[in-house]
Amino acid sequence: MVYVSRKEHFNAAHKLYNPAWSREKNEEVFGPCANANWHGHNFDLIVTVKGKADPDTGFVADLKKLSTLIRTEIIEHLDHKNLNTDVPFMAGKLASCENLVVEMWKILEPRIPQISKFGSLHSIKLYETPRNFVEYFGDDHL
Amino acid sequence: MVYVSRKEHFNAAHKLYNPAWSREKNEEVFGPCANANWHGHNFDLIVTVKGKADPDTGFVADLKKLSTLIRTEIIEHLDHKNLNTDVPFMAGKLASCENLVVEMWKILEPRIPQISKFGSLHSIKLYETPRNFVEYFGDDHL
Amino acid sequence: MVYVSRKEHFNAAHKLYNPAWSREKNEEVFGPCANANWHGHNFDLIVTVKGKADPDTGFVADLKKLSTLIRTEIIEHLDHKNLNTDVPFMAGKLASCENLVVEMWKILEPRIPQISKFGSLHSIKLYETPRNFVEYFGDDHL
Amino acid sequence: MVYVSRKEHFNAAHKLYNPAWSREKNEEVFGPCANANWHGHNFDLIVTVKGKADPDTGFVADLKKLSTLIRTEIIEHLDHKNLNTDVPFMAGKLASCENLVVEMWKILEPRIPQISKFGSLHSIKLYETPRNFVEYFGDDHL
Amino acid sequence: MVYVSRKEHFNAAHKLYNPAWSREKNEEVFGPCANANWHGHNFDLIVTVKGKADPDTGFVADLKKLSTLIRTEIIEHLDHKNLNTDVPFMAGKLASCENLVVEMWKILEPRIPQISKFGSLHSIKLYETPRNFVEYFGDDHL
Amino acid sequence: MVYVSRKEHFNAAHKLYNPAWSREKNEEVFGPCANANWHGHNFDLIVTVKGKADPDTGFVADLKKLSTLIRTEIIEHLDHKNLNTDVPFMAGKLASCENLVVEMWKILEPRIPQISKFGSLHSIKLYETPRNFVEYFGDDHL
Repeated sequence: MVYVSRKEHFNAAHKLYNPAWSREKNEEVFGPCANANWHGHNFDLIVTVKGKADPDTGFVADLKKLSTLIRTEIIEHLDHKNLNTDVPFMAGKLASCENLVVEMWKILEPRIPQISKFGSLHSIKLYETPRNFVEYFGDDHL
Repeated sequence: MVYVSRKEHFNAAHKLYNPAWSREKNEEVFGPCANANWHGHNFDLIVTVKGKADPDTGFVADLKKLSTLIRTEIIEHLDHKNLNTDVPFMAGKLASCENLVVEMWKILEPRIPQISKFGSLHSIKLYETPRNFVEYFGDDHL
Repeated sequence: MVYVSRKEHFNAAHKLYNPAWSREKNEEVFGPCANANWHGHNFDLIVTVKGKADPDTGFVADLKKLSTLIRTEIIEHLDHKNLNTDVPFMAGKLASCENLVVEMWKILEPRIPQISKFGSLHSIKLYETPRNFVEYFGDDHL
Repeated sequence: MVYVSRKEHFNAAHKLYNPAWSREKNEEVFGPCANANWHGHNFDLIVTVKGKADPDTGFVADLKKLSTLIRTEIIEHLDHKNLNTDVPFMAGKLASCENLVVEMWKILEPRIPQISKFGSLHSIKLYETPRNFVEYFGDDHL
Repeated sequence: MVYVSRKEHFNAAHKLYNPAWSREKNEEVFGPCANANWHGHNFDLIVTVKGKADPDTGFVADLKKLSTLIRTEIIEHLDHKNLNTDVPFMAGKLASCENLVVEMWKILEPRIPQISKFGSLHSIKLYETPRNFVEYFGDDHL
Repeated sequence: MVYVSRKEHFNAAHKLYNPAWSREKNEEVFGPCANANWHGHNFDLIVTVKGKADPDTGFVADLKKLSTLIRTEIIEHLDHKNLNTDVPFMAGKLASCENLVVEMWKILEPRIPQISKFGSLHSIKLYETPRNFVEYFGDDHL
């Protein structure tokens, strides 16, 4: 079992805002992250696939294909977008990194077999800034 | 003459949009950067002061004071904001990095004497992403 | 279960020195790290909390609160200090990164519930340099 | 149990090429990575040892000794070399990162006791570029 | 006058080898960089254009167009190539970073007007490794 | 004229302390940087040599030789040392980065001809942290 990873990035606007709360409550909980007119980030996204190496290629997964998959299924929907208003798979969800990685998992996990004979999705790591980041390993991970 | 630098950062939303143009023309020129609902970045900002070292401190400028000056005069007005709508000193200007560094220069250049006896502002460098960045040395620089 | 991380930093002096040994033995074992007059580092510290996201905020832990907790309980006691002489929680211990992360765990682990309803401490990672670093997951981790 | 890591680097040429296939098939599968005249990378290599800290030194492993071990056993055989033609332990194997970390594991795992009383090899992580990397934890790791 | 920069990268093999010298002399002068079977690097390339900002766009140069120009004229000819054997504009030249940036200047300098109304080429900076890099400002720069 | 640079690093302890002042005055001016028991940093040092490329090697300066010169003349005297007490060339000087780069210039500038036929010292850049750094171009630089 070897773990292979590909890093991509996207630039997006968002705000943290719970529509069930008043503006005051949102500002109290989320501080400047609730700014009505949005703020934004350069996000870095690392997707890791685990499996055994294909003896014909030496690859667990062709990272060019993994890159294309991530770009097509994830990056094109997020890059230069507003995470609260422009992204169908985030509709009705708080635009936190925690929620983002869980939704990304649902999209990518079933598609890994398209690009890797022996591999499966291991983790999705999302850097909102170089100092704030989250990682998700799927619900079956203990 | 020694050059001393301090790096700060801020996270903001913006779009590139010339209000004198149609939406179509904006999208043609600025592409996804013109997205109506904004996008955003983690900006890195490096301010450089040049001068001779004060013999009492060994400093051209106390970098803690330079940091405080940059945060008070620049970062607090930009961090977790929308550069097009929330920033008085950018009102009526296209929210490009080129315009940002020129406006920052106008604010910081006259205030350097507050924090440095022997120094003057040398340059302002702004990273929009790790791969796109601009630098300004003032109008007198050849 | 999502893992959320916050990176902080501190600058400190230390030396590696076992007081039960002679100076010669210390220099033989620790080399230049045993320099009598100290040396120092810019340490980077990454604290990871795991748990499920709070449905009201989308957060496992508010990273601003996690940052404040790390700064108050750890960074203020280490930053611009001497790890051998100035830090009560390191008294009587060798100032190695291994010992530092174990002591940090004892301080932070019981305090995570103050800042996160659903999360618990997962790991503490300490970079002494970009090339030397240690990580600790608590004693219960296999 | 604490995990301690050391990062080293090497610069090498390679190509991805399965000699059982035609040139056309290699170019179809590996694209520009199959370029007949090679290409190359600055590789970063992170080796992690886990164990309990030696009470006499505060160390799981002396990272200077770990560095020397990695350089002697691995880096000297790879740095400024061609991974396909110059490296005995890669002879007859596809020069993929997956195969590299598995071969490195075979070399380093039995030698860790030479430099650490209480530690054992935990993982080998290899960055081919800052965006493409692999990690291996040994065959016994689930 | 504002300076705008774009960073690109490429991965290539090369060796340092003066064909007018014996193998022994080459190894004496260039050391492992003369390895007969090549070695390689992940090169980072930063191209800087200077000029005044276009009042219609706020841009000295559209960095997407600058990126496309660099990729078309430079990166496509170097990425996943051998700098000694595969690159027409390096034919008959030692494959040093110094020679590379001078040749890149000759290609890019006359093409900047294609992508920028007010800008001209200011510098080309090439990182062979994060620790070894060169910069060129053209022959007219004092 | 091409500019070639080499990056080295060292880890050292220091404090900012003017012995002509009281402890109170030092703490007022230098804050925690005046901590009696020292603090420390991982310093990064970039030395730039400018000149024309030697036609026999394609080099302005052999960066391995520049590295050796910097290590022998500078790094060995600073690494794992106390900048206030252990470094002859800093004796009697405040241990600020500004003073460090000026003293390094005096040492390196006359020695560049030993390693480069056509080059001369252009600049010395010293990072105390990734966010605080200084650069010196010699006294003749305007």
